[in-house]
Amino acid sequence: MPVQQGLMEVGDVTGAWAIMPTPSTDNASDWRVTNTVDLNESARVVDALIEGGVDGILSLGTLGEGATLSWEEKTAFMGAIIESARGRVPIFVGTTSLNTRETIRQTRIACDMGADGTMLGLPMWCAPSVDVAVQFYRDVAEACPDMALCIYANTEAFKFEFPRPFWAQVAGIRQVVTAKYIGIGPLLLDLALSQRQIKFLPLDMDYYGAARMDPEFCDAFWTSGAVCGPELAIALRDEVAKARQSHDWNEAGRLSGMLAGSLSTLFPNGSFQQFSMYNIGLEKARMDAAGWMKAGPVRPPYHLVPEPFLEGARQSGRAWAEICAGLKG
Amino acid sequence: MPVQQGLMEVGDVTGAWAIMPTPSTDNASDWRVTNTVDLNESARVVDALIEGGVDGILSLGTLGEGATLSWEEKTAFMGAIIESARGRVPIFVGTTSLNTRETIRQTRIACDMGADGTMLGLPMWCAPSVDVAVQFYRDVAEACPDMALCIYANTEAFKFEFPRPFWAQVAGIRQVVTAKYIGIGPLLLDLALSQRQIKFLPLDMDYYGAARMDPEFCDAFWTSGAVCGPELAIALRDEVAKARQSHDWNEAGRLSGMLAGSLSTLFPNGSFQQFSMYNIGLEKARMDAAGWMKAGPVRPPYHLVPEPFLEGARQSGRAWAEICAGLKG
Amino acid sequence: MPVQQGLMEVGDVTGAWAIMPTPSTDNASDWRVTNTVDLNESARVVDALIEGGVDGILSLGTLGEGATLSWEEKTAFMGAIIESARGRVPIFVGTTSLNTRETIRQTRIACDMGADGTMLGLPMWCAPSVDVAVQFYRDVAEACPDMALCIYANTEAFKFEFPRPFWAQVAGIRQVVTAKYIGIGPLLLDLALSQRQIKFLPLDMDYYGAARMDPEFCDAFWTSGAVCGPELAIALRDEVAKARQSHDWNEAGRLSGMLAGSLSTLFPNGSFQQFSMYNIGLEKARMDAAGWMKAGPVRPPYHLVPEPFLEGARQSGRAWAEICAGLKG
Amino acid sequence: MPVQQGLMEVGDVTGAWAIMPTPSTDNASDWRVTNTVDLNESARVVDALIEGGVDGILSLGTLGEGATLSWEEKTAFMGAIIESARGRVPIFVGTTSLNTRETIRQTRIACDMGADGTMLGLPMWCAPSVDVAVQFYRDVAEACPDMALCIYANTEAFKFEFPRPFWAQVAGIRQVVTAKYIGIGPLLLDLALSQRQIKFLPLDMDYYGAARMDPEFCDAFWTSGAVCGPELAIALRDEVAKARQSHDWNEAGRLSGMLAGSLSTLFPNGSFQQFSMYNIGLEKARMDAAGWMKAGPVRPPYHLVPEPFLEGARQSGRAWAEICAGLKG
Repeated sequence: MPVQQGLMEVGDVTGAWAIMPTPSTDNASDWRVTNTVDLNESARVVDALIEGGVDGILSLGTLGEGATLSWEEKTAFMGAIIESARGRVPIFVGTTSLNTRETIRQTRIACDMGADGTMLGLPMWCAPSVDVAVQFYRDVAEACPDMALCIYANTEAFKFEFPRPFWAQVAGIRQVVTAKYIGIGPLLLDLALSQRQIKFLPLDMDYYGAARMDPEFCDAFWTSGAVCGPELAIALRDEVAKARQSHDWNEAGRLSGMLAGSLSTLFPNGSFQQFSMYNIGLEKARMDAAGWMKAGPVRPPYHLVPEPFLEGARQSGRAWAEICAGLKG
Repeated sequence: MPVQQGLMEVGDVTGAWAIMPTPSTDNASDWRVTNTVDLNESARVVDALIEGGVDGILSLGTLGEGATLSWEEKTAFMGAIIESARGRVPIFVGTTSLNTRETIRQTRIACDMGADGTMLGLPMWCAPSVDVAVQFYRDVAEACPDMALCIYANTEAFKFEFPRPFWAQVAGIRQVVTAKYIGIGPLLLDLALSQRQIKFLPLDMDYYGAARMDPEFCDAFWTSGAVCGPELAIALRDEVAKARQSHDWNEAGRLSGMLAGSLSTLFPNGSFQQFSMYNIGLEKARMDAAGWMKAGPVRPPYHLVPEPFLEGARQSGRAWAEICAGLKG
Repeated sequence: MPVQQGLMEVGDVTGAWAIMPTPSTDNASDWRVTNTVDLNESARVVDALIEGGVDGILSLGTLGEGATLSWEEKTAFMGAIIESARGRVPIFVGTTSLNTRETIRQTRIACDMGADGTMLGLPMWCAPSVDVAVQFYRDVAEACPDMALCIYANTEAFKFEFPRPFWAQVAGIRQVVTAKYIGIGPLLLDLALSQRQIKFLPLDMDYYGAARMDPEFCDAFWTSGAVCGPELAIALRDEVAKARQSHDWNEAGRLSGMLAGSLSTLFPNGSFQQFSMYNIGLEKARMDAAGWMKAGPVRPPYHLVPEPFLEGARQSGRAWAEICAGLKG
Repeated sequence: MPVQQGLMEVGDVTGAWAIMPTPSTDNASDWRVTNTVDLNESARVVDALIEGGVDGILSLGTLGEGATLSWEEKTAFMGAIIESARGRVPIFVGTTSLNTRETIRQTRIACDMGADGTMLGLPMWCAPSVDVAVQFYRDVAEACPDMALCIYANTEAFKFEFPRPFWAQVAGIRQVVTAKYIGIGPLLLDLALSQRQIKFLPLDMDYYGAARMDPEFCDAFWTSGAVCGPELAIALRDEVAKARQSHDWNEAGRLSGMLAGSLSTLFPNGSFQQFSMYNIGLEKARMDAAGWMKAGPVRPPYHLVPEPFLEGARQSGRAWAEICAGLKG
């Protein structure tokens, strides 16, 4: 993906978008510690992801610990990754907060620092109505006209179903170019309602299904696995692209099945709800076990995770790494 | 209640604890505005509540817009109410945030400003496990040894059931002296599990029931109605105190029934879940309609509330005011 | 409680109402078996409960396997317990089914067999609206004018919140004299809305709290523990009655605390939702472990229960039996 | 689809499977009435559906009022539709009940009457665990070896998430050849876990998406719209079949979009949960408004439905009928 001049457009969002954690120092679970970001590792990961072929980077969401970093840590991290990227791929940071004005304050600073967009969830103290949610995105867009918006559609975190009427309305906001999307059940409906003005990013595991449902439009996905080794995500992206031309989806399907298999132990008891409680700890344990990067300990209060759940996550990371090793071999 | 020297104890929490809003300027719903706190009204309300007889003040929770104030607004408000109280009753502010370290930072500053305690909810991005929740309160208590803690047991806001094992464990934290509690179904169990080391504050509507269940211990409650006119809350407190001596609960029951009646239109379609979505707007509309104070507009993003729901809230406020007028007459 | 001539009235529901299981033969978990009711044990238990002092008997609810008995088994069981009771205490059977007409058919037959009332839940395929729920009870009452109705307010089973407006409306049905109620949080509200035309039966564990909240009216409760030994339920009933006169609630509170303690291992991980999934198996295991009666195996499909959960239930049964032994000693 | 000799296999389930209601007499909402099935209309609808081209018929589920018919009505209806079909297409009846033994009893009788299979949900008093659910289907399959099973995967009705491990296990039951499925988000996972031993039937609205995700396997769907006029469902089936060959999905996508559009007013406030409460009344109102058949009034207790919701349903029916008219024109 070429660097954008001016605001990103829907068509600029393509390929494999990596979600990265905020690497932490060894003492980061201690509330007394104030500088917990491993800035060297942060910069290294961004460079290695881009060298590895990813098309965009999302950061400071749930597993990116957007909720538990101090403002000083957040800005230091943003500076490090934006500088490391050097405009080679779009960088979206997270500026989700408890209210409209604070999100606008953070988003403006991120924009000034050179971020291309924000992966933005909703204020989450009260569950929002559709009206509240739509107006929130409208206000942020108006206040930050040079930032692209990726709607962070996490129902558990933001107490919001992201229902059909929501998509119909936010599609009218020009800066809303993409969305981190979970589950592809209503994807065709949401594509229709948004008039394809939003590039929905399914999870890597769902990318094959989304691409088959709408091969013309669905050409991008998000992946938290890329930091367990980018080869698998890149191979999936490329096999799907081939299949789109050849109409032979066998190899893409096979890869997608392997990828899905590696995730089977990541979700405790197969439950997404339980995964959501321990999301950060499970994802960081998975990443550390894969060995491609050093995600480091979890910041408080989310650093306490049951050991059996962690072991499932580590197994998932090792499985991903093995697939990558096979792809490289 | 006399002013405390040193840290508050369980026995210091008695009587009617008023929850107050953060009064706002007329343009407070506009995200462009930065100084939205009506500091004069804030100070006036605190003084009038104390003159009216309340025994403690809770602030900066849900309806207190703890989530949507800027840090500058929050500290200005804290300064104004602490100064206005002049130590006559305990003042609890809210320092709930998205993580442990930020809450500690805010709580230490509130302590230095002279607050007696914090009404403290949980970080709410991820739903916490019991371990995460207990450790959070332990860490804040350790970091802020001179602050009393009121556990803010709001299940909708904080994605946490506040189950029995939680209370058994936090009862061991000396600074946890009270809790803003909703529903009295499991109250006796929680009293037993906490070994009466926490003074649970039921809602004004539930105070009569709680006091009858445990007349010896249950002698305090919270009320967001006090700012619709303190007379009703004070009368309820005093009638229950009388009944505790005389064993004649008729008048206390009659008052409690009138109070409950005034709340019947506050909850949209009788639903607590729907109320939670529009909590701030409904409570402020109720207060403004009662006419005792000026709560003012809601800060974004929660300023959009369906008009029929608002009308029910206003009706509730007027009903409360009428009962107060009758008590004064 | 004296035997009623004609239809029961609200005031006729007092004291300790035992909920009994439907005792089963050793092969009752096998779907091939057709006569699974141990009629001798059924009759013996009814007689022993009455001799032990209970004031009423409820049957054929959830743990009574009203859902999983064949019609032939159900009528045989009803015949056995009604005959064994010989009019000494009221007998309520369960006639909950998937629709209005089938419930009416069953209720009329139960009435002809001599049952005093039905403990009646709602058809549960679709979640009912308040209108549907109220009309259901109205229709059954109209069709079965000689039966008393006990509303079976189980939210998990019947997909219904049993909200405040429901109670206000069913209170107008003369035959609705009582309700099996769970949780006492909204009890005072429901008493007010029903104008005390329904004798709500709290769980044994909640009886102390209910009796303190409204000592004049709340003089009855349900207990599934009575079949683990009736002594504890009877002692609780009698201590509460004494306290109502003497205003000294200490001994009643002490007994209630012991009773609640015995239940602490009955709920898997303290969760009512998980308990609801395995209700039948857990209650029957508890009863069999207490040794006062032989509840027997669970009928399909609910006969599969995780062993650790069963062990908690057995421990609960043994704890109840030990308290009874102490009371007798 | 040719008539089967012996038990159906997975590959026998293809094309458009119509879900039909149980047509009712004009007084069917009155609990006093005992013969409420319009047998002539039942037989006529089956014949017209087959003449119209449907490939299979499902009956006696939620909207088929399997829950609220008497046994006499149910058997009369089964007899009428089986006879009318004369083996031209497979007929699945519903034998869902409150327990394993009753379902086996009903299923055996349905088998003797000539039904090809049962569309079978779970006993729904208690929420089943995976173990309970799997064993239920195993027991019914063992007891009724000549019946095909269609798993009725309705999460709202049966209090069961139908999670991934369930599908992995029931795929091993040979008689389980198909499933009425809702939502296609996890479809590819479930296809993998079931090793394509179950022909999942998506909703007509989701058929296009399912067929694109797995064009080789996904060649069947269920439709409650066929009784609003079979032309649209048949056209969708045929356009998808063409696209599967030509790789040109435009016309199939256009038809699917029109179909989805006609459903937009069927779901009250866009909510599936609210739809589930009023499912029967809404579907029957939709069918009656379309004018292709006479579905008739709803049997108690589900006959009370808010008028605005009914109007949305009628609008949906008329929209479907208009599309059919266009297809015929």
